[in-house]
Amino acid sequence: MGDFQNLISIHYLTRDDIDLILDTAADMESVAVERTQEFSNKIMATLFFEPSTRTRLSFESAMLRLGGRVLGFAEAGVSSAGSKGETLADTIRTVERYADVIVIRHPLDGSARVAAEFSKVPIINAGSGSEEHPTQALLDLYSIRKMKGKIDGLSISLCGDLKYGRTVHSLGIALARYDVQVKLAAPPSLRMKPAIIDAMREAGVDAIEVDSIDDALEGADVVYMTRIQKERFYLEQDFIDVRGQFILNESLLPLLKEDAIILHPLPRVDEVSAEMDDTLHAKYFEQVYNGVIVRMAILKMLLS
Amino acid sequence: MGDFQNLISIHYLTRDDIDLILDTAADMESVAVERTQEFSNKIMATLFFEPSTRTRLSFESAMLRLGGRVLGFAEAGVSSAGSKGETLADTIRTVERYADVIVIRHPLDGSARVAAEFSKVPIINAGSGSEEHPTQALLDLYSIRKMKGKIDGLSISLCGDLKYGRTVHSLGIALARYDVQVKLAAPPSLRMKPAIIDAMREAGVDAIEVDSIDDALEGADVVYMTRIQKERFYLEQDFIDVRGQFILNESLLPLLKEDAIILHPLPRVDEVSAEMDDTLHAKYFEQVYNGVIVRMAILKMLLS
Amino acid sequence: MGDFQNLISIHYLTRDDIDLILDTAADMESVAVERTQEFSNKIMATLFFEPSTRTRLSFESAMLRLGGRVLGFAEAGVSSAGSKGETLADTIRTVERYADVIVIRHPLDGSARVAAEFSKVPIINAGSGSEEHPTQALLDLYSIRKMKGKIDGLSISLCGDLKYGRTVHSLGIALARYDVQVKLAAPPSLRMKPAIIDAMREAGVDAIEVDSIDDALEGADVVYMTRIQKERFYLEQDFIDVRGQFILNESLLPLLKEDAIILHPLPRVDEVSAEMDDTLHAKYFEQVYNGVIVRMAILKMLLS
Repeated sequence: MGDFQNLISIHYLTRDDIDLILDTAADMESVAVERTQEFSNKIMATLFFEPSTRTRLSFESAMLRLGGRVLGFAEAGVSSAGSKGETLADTIRTVERYADVIVIRHPLDGSARVAAEFSKVPIINAGSGSEEHPTQALLDLYSIRKMKGKIDGLSISLCGDLKYGRTVHSLGIALARYDVQVKLAAPPSLRMKPAIIDAMREAGVDAIEVDSIDDALEGADVVYMTRIQKERFYLEQDFIDVRGQFILNESLLPLLKEDAIILHPLPRVDEVSAEMDDTLHAKYFEQVYNGVIVRMAILKMLLS
Repeated sequence: MGDFQNLISIHYLTRDDIDLILDTAADMESVAVERTQEFSNKIMATLFFEPSTRTRLSFESAMLRLGGRVLGFAEAGVSSAGSKGETLADTIRTVERYADVIVIRHPLDGSARVAAEFSKVPIINAGSGSEEHPTQALLDLYSIRKMKGKIDGLSISLCGDLKYGRTVHSLGIALARYDVQVKLAAPPSLRMKPAIIDAMREAGVDAIEVDSIDDALEGADVVYMTRIQKERFYLEQDFIDVRGQFILNESLLPLLKEDAIILHPLPRVDEVSAEMDDTLHAKYFEQVYNGVIVRMAILKMLLS
Repeated sequence: MGDFQNLISIHYLTRDDIDLILDTAADMESVAVERTQEFSNKIMATLFFEPSTRTRLSFESAMLRLGGRVLGFAEAGVSSAGSKGETLADTIRTVERYADVIVIRHPLDGSARVAAEFSKVPIINAGSGSEEHPTQALLDLYSIRKMKGKIDGLSISLCGDLKYGRTVHSLGIALARYDVQVKLAAPPSLRMKPAIIDAMREAGVDAIEVDSIDDALEGADVVYMTRIQKERFYLEQDFIDVRGQFILNESLLPLLKEDAIILHPLPRVDEVSAEMDDTLHAKYFEQVYNGVIVRMAILKMLLS
């Protein structure tokens, strides 16, 4: 990976960096099926200070397909880090003695950056605070490129909670590296941070805020749905009202382009209704598999 | 495994299916000792929505002896499935992208069946609701066959809580495939469900309900003990009274046939008293090892 | 390992035993870097009835570097042992069927001894009650020998909570096997147990109790710091007063011998202040790595 040794933030990646990762991911497709023992001497540590089945198991599946070994913890409560007041810096300077690469998820913004500062082995950010989830953004881009054949020139709509989700923040920054149109559809209280919209526009992206899911679907090549969480609302009725407006179900099928794809970082509740699952638009479970592929590529690049 | 691709329920297995599994298990005895790297490219996911050391570690030991790799979670709280309202169908359609076989334990009846419906990779039911625990029933049968040389013709007594234990439900159905006499000894409030007794009788099993552990022991070739749990009783005194009547200790040794074996799914509290452990009747720890053997056989059949 | 098959207590190890373990550890240095597949057919179970990231991951890293496989649980709550009233003896007689070696951490004194009594596979004590943590003591000795070139003839100071820490208890007994001077610096309420001081003196160790960290640092070749925990004090003010007196920071640097090394079992809070980390005295993170090396040696000796 050119001149960096960790994967901390989409902000640190140029378009060339990203394209190199996506190209490496494409090379991983056959390895993911056939498996290899290439990294049978390598150990990956997964430090999950926040629970996450999906991301943790995705990294583990990636490492195991490369032949590697895994150790770690799945929640801070089981670790000294959680229960004995140890600093993150000390945890990292300990775990770097146990493993060849560290995958970290942590509730604080900047945590992965701190980890990289103290670690002699590569750090991969598996989600930090509300700002960064770079491997998710990369697997989203890879899914788009794999399914649509390209990224440049597409119209991509991000829908739902664009304020609190680290997924859409990282994806927004990543899309700023491409020549795309981005529609941002969110309830008034959950709109994308102006800083990210500005970054996209400065990079030349045609970023438009729209009010309804209908506007988001119209003309979109890619519809990226996210979950709206109850705890973001003071009044339950507000939540119920807003949520109902950002559900993608069969009644909206006529608005979708014939070859539009629907992505979702998962888990979902019902913002993409189950009746969509059997349509050709639904690509969120293939997206899960692409996560394994992309994480194999990242591990391969950092461990080689 | 002939015409099925999952292991969901004893109900789905014919006698031939069961005998094939037990024969394959016998072939696994030497592999379990010597180990193999045959499945070094295979990944098993363990999804335990209920805690269970024993069953989870037994499956992991089986997979590791076959050379395979393991990922998963040990309690729902650590997973999105538990904490973010994801449906089981979505969890399965995600995890099938991470692994080549899925072992699931879940508190709801029918959960493994639902999992199999949505999964492209084999599903193994490691305990669902109060009804099914098919791999336990298979390891029980294997233990009986290995220790007694046969199953047909034996007198087998099931004792303790026959109402709530999924272990005895699956075992009852499994025994209906054989030419055996079954005595069912339980307190009045914890008797075996009529549906299972009926199924055994319809299949030609001589199933008899008895009132006391003494009756159960008399003439039995196999005594299968289970735990009676306090939470099944409204009044603590009722629990204490009933429990005391279903304890197998040295004072009952004279009632046992010389070559009778005692099995127990474990964990036990004191329904089989510790003083029995050193007798030749006690086979419950060998039964634990047989669990590894049988699960190796099931993994071998589903992954080959 | 001469005539013993488990690693339960430093009390059971002669100086020759310890030296053999340390020599084997030295042989492991290159294996730890290059890795091996020697134990690809071996399974280690980690039974952690108390949370501990550090020790568990250290053992796992050691086993993985030797090519072995790992299963286990990280907290009793996830296991039958914790939630269903199973005895430790039954848990051990179960898990010995799943693994080739068992690493156990348990809150009760004597637990590892009980485990060894019931197990047919080797038991390694990874911390039991407040008394024993033998692998920590061995890695401490190994760190001293590696960094100072010898153990005999050194002046070694143990500082902080010497009453409740199992680490310093095991280390104290281990040091009694060597020709060393030991200074014991603790607050009045947290002094080393007389029995351990007596054992050291009877073995010929020059063991001196001192009142202040200043006295401990003076002339010391090795300064072994430990954490003082709030919950040991009835009054918070007493804790604050005492704690402040046992902090090693830059202001004390002039008291240290030029080549003195600082060790700490970790995790630390601030009893060794962060400003010490960049000095040449600070060896606690190298000590972490030595833990992997020593545990590789122990696994190698018990599994060969």
